[in-house]
Amino acid sequence: MASIKPRTMSEFLRWYWRLISAPQARSAVRLVFELYALALRNPRAYPGVLEEPVAFWPKLVAAMGVESEVDDVESTLLLAALRGLLLDLCATSDRRRTGAAMDLLARLFEGVDSRHARNHPDSR
Amino acid sequence: MASIKPRTMSEFLRWYWRLISAPQARSAVRLVFELYALALRNPRAYPGVLEEPVAFWPKLVAAMGVESEVDDVESTLLLAALRGLLLDLCATSDRRRTGAAMDLLARLFEGVDSRHARNHPDSR
Repeated sequence: MASIKPRTMSEFLRWYWRLISAPQARSAVRLVFELYALALRNPRAYPGVLEEPVAFWPKLVAAMGVESEVDDVESTLLLAALRGLLLDLCATSDRRRTGAAMDLLARLFEGVDSRHARNHPDSR
Repeated sequence: MASIKPRTMSEFLRWYWRLISAPQARSAVRLVFELYALALRNPRAYPGVLEEPVAFWPKLVAAMGVESEVDDVESTLLLAALRGLLLDLCATSDRRRTGAAMDLLARLFEGVDSRHARNHPDSR
């Protein structure tokens, strides 16, 4: 596991991807997509499976002590990209390409992090 | 339907999202996620369902006559975000929030478009 604690959202994304894209996590990730499909068909039978996508990142990020702020829209895009990349990884097992796409997302979010830092200089 | 033909990837993303996020498309999108889950479990029984994620965007973009170039990694991230946002939309029906996240992605990719334009000035 990575020994350096992630401090920004970009660092966190790379750290989290290394964890969740590992081959040992693959069967759990595949199961999650089966649960999603079941929950889309019958939401009441699978409470919590697809709920609160907006709450996912702020909770995780706060639990990890990451300093970046994420608003609802950023959280939505981050979770969407993560889910989509995991679906691709499960389907293709191409960890290099999906990892590079996560790295591109992290780089794109470095600009978002900077903007937050500019807007809230005292919070850094 | 949008009457202005998209020319850049950012314009295309916004145009495509308007099309695919419409309520009339919802049951088809939900079906796609059920097919994904089935294909992850038994790929041979569902050939083509999860294949060639990398080929998706270049084909679509070329068919639309969009001028942006997308490499494998950008294609991977775009498709991942699109799939993830559609999953969120199916689950929550929150077209405003998911649409804003697609708009954020389009804005982030405006920088990628600019980079390509700088690297290949003659192709514009």
